[in-house]
Amino acid sequence: MKKIDELKVAALAGGVGGAKLIVGLRNVLPEGQLTAIVNTGDDFEHFGLRICPDLDTVCYSLAGVADALHGWGVKDETWHVLDQLRQLEAPSWFALGDRDLALHLERTRLLAEGNRLTLVTKAICRKLEVSTAVLPMCDQVAPTLIRLKDGRVLGFQEYFVGERFEPLIDEIILPEASNLSMTTEVAEALRNADLIVICPSNPWVSIAPILNVPGVREQVSSKIIIAVSPIINGAALKGPAAKMFAELGIEASASNVLAHYGELVDGFVYDNQEDENLTITSSKGIILFKTNTIMKETHEKNNLAVDVLCLGLKLFNENN
Amino acid sequence: MKKIDELKVAALAGGVGGAKLIVGLRNVLPEGQLTAIVNTGDDFEHFGLRICPDLDTVCYSLAGVADALHGWGVKDETWHVLDQLRQLEAPSWFALGDRDLALHLERTRLLAEGNRLTLVTKAICRKLEVSTAVLPMCDQVAPTLIRLKDGRVLGFQEYFVGERFEPLIDEIILPEASNLSMTTEVAEALRNADLIVICPSNPWVSIAPILNVPGVREQVSSKIIIAVSPIINGAALKGPAAKMFAELGIEASASNVLAHYGELVDGFVYDNQEDENLTITSSKGIILFKTNTIMKETHEKNNLAVDVLCLGLKLFNENN
Repeated sequence: MKKIDELKVAALAGGVGGAKLIVGLRNVLPEGQLTAIVNTGDDFEHFGLRICPDLDTVCYSLAGVADALHGWGVKDETWHVLDQLRQLEAPSWFALGDRDLALHLERTRLLAEGNRLTLVTKAICRKLEVSTAVLPMCDQVAPTLIRLKDGRVLGFQEYFVGERFEPLIDEIILPEASNLSMTTEVAEALRNADLIVICPSNPWVSIAPILNVPGVREQVSSKIIIAVSPIINGAALKGPAAKMFAELGIEASASNVLAHYGELVDGFVYDNQEDENLTITSSKGIILFKTNTIMKETHEKNNLAVDVLCLGLKLFNENN
Repeated sequence: MKKIDELKVAALAGGVGGAKLIVGLRNVLPEGQLTAIVNTGDDFEHFGLRICPDLDTVCYSLAGVADALHGWGVKDETWHVLDQLRQLEAPSWFALGDRDLALHLERTRLLAEGNRLTLVTKAICRKLEVSTAVLPMCDQVAPTLIRLKDGRVLGFQEYFVGERFEPLIDEIILPEASNLSMTTEVAEALRNADLIVICPSNPWVSIAPILNVPGVREQVSSKIIIAVSPIINGAALKGPAAKMFAELGIEASASNVLAHYGELVDGFVYDNQEDENLTITSSKGIILFKTNTIMKETHEKNNLAVDVLCLGLKLFNENN
């Protein structure tokens, strides 16, 4: 019988929504109990620099320097480099803030020295005074590609930022799993975890890439898994999740998020404002939990974290 | 018999002093008559970005945006990226200004697309509204290395900026010439030139690398060449030239600059403030010309350019 402060938690996350819940989990768990495993399928190279949008959002959020208004980048940012790039008529579709750019420069330098992304991220976290373990899902470059209905194949950021996720999606292409490998750090975090939290991130382009890394799905399957729906009443709070559902021929709804995760999850958390009360159609006894999942303020992040942890603890203790 | 506005001029230059004379030459020559051929031996990679200090100094100077106080970078510069790099404890020995950085990003991007440095520089000049032809000495990476008396071998910027040119020099190592090739643009500029100007740049690390590119020395040898001394009364206005002379066992003096260039030059311009009046010891009838070579103000750049062009024109018309 574990107590809540004894739970080891591994949280799978993408960008903004995921980062918020990770901050909540960090706030309510004792130090050392939480590991964030973060999607790197959005990573891309821009001006020769390695940019890791989801890792950065998680790290900046944990460091307390995230730009809450935009949902990406650093607060109180300046834009002198970007202004000059525009003057030079250089690509300016990806908004590189001055301080944010420094991080991309340093990461690129450390990677070029031959360091693994996992260790580079650890070093950056130390500099940002982030003590939570933040792990990229893998060390390899593992881009998620978006095939559009017009036939083009774009990197995720090109689609998401460059084209403002306007074009219709035909297919989301994850990298060949056999080219990827789970890091020892991810393997250890999953092995040690009592509870896996799937954060309210885009199931297709934030969570699926993590589960695509060989071994991750198998390792988490043997654990208690709580997923939080990123869809509320058919819409995503941010990003293209709902639009992607529709274009992939699936109605965007919390129940379809649940159906997507299927028998993987043991508990499913969805929002109070959801009109329908979800019911379980699968044979597995998934526990449903309705609560506030909108995390504007710190207390909302912390409350959702507590809800997720309590549900997880209950399921863990029932099964162990 | 050519007139001064008919002279085609190719000017070989390194950084600050060279850039000033190039601005003067641009100011007094009709458009299209001047080509700057610029040292790239100082180029280096920093955070994965290709940085070309001498090309940038020449381009910024021609664009009228150079920081005259520091002698490098852009005037009215901001330093937000560098501040954040310091926060991250990343290397900050090379002062990357925000606007300057945008140029390095765009150059790196264009090079990564497979464009030659010559064409990248041309594109950047167009964006900076610089109409003078500015050519890198070659398209290959051609680093000048500095072997120190303590045994270390540094890239030029590491020695010059990183170590503030404090360590004693043992040897200046130019790249194996057989690995370099003259571009068609440099070949054409030299072929068309009536007059070659060796700007008041460091003979060892700014001019020698250009002359080291196969074909350059041969091509310029058949032309009228005017060199301007970067040494005044044993000192350089800026940079390590005088210190390098001493460490290489040669007294730093205008006459030793002349001796260094030797029979290559037809005319030699040195400063009014030089205590001694140079005399010619070589068999070749080199013309000496004493004038003000200190170029703080625009009129001083223009005046020196006129002096150099008049001397060059005289020699050209005597020989053609």
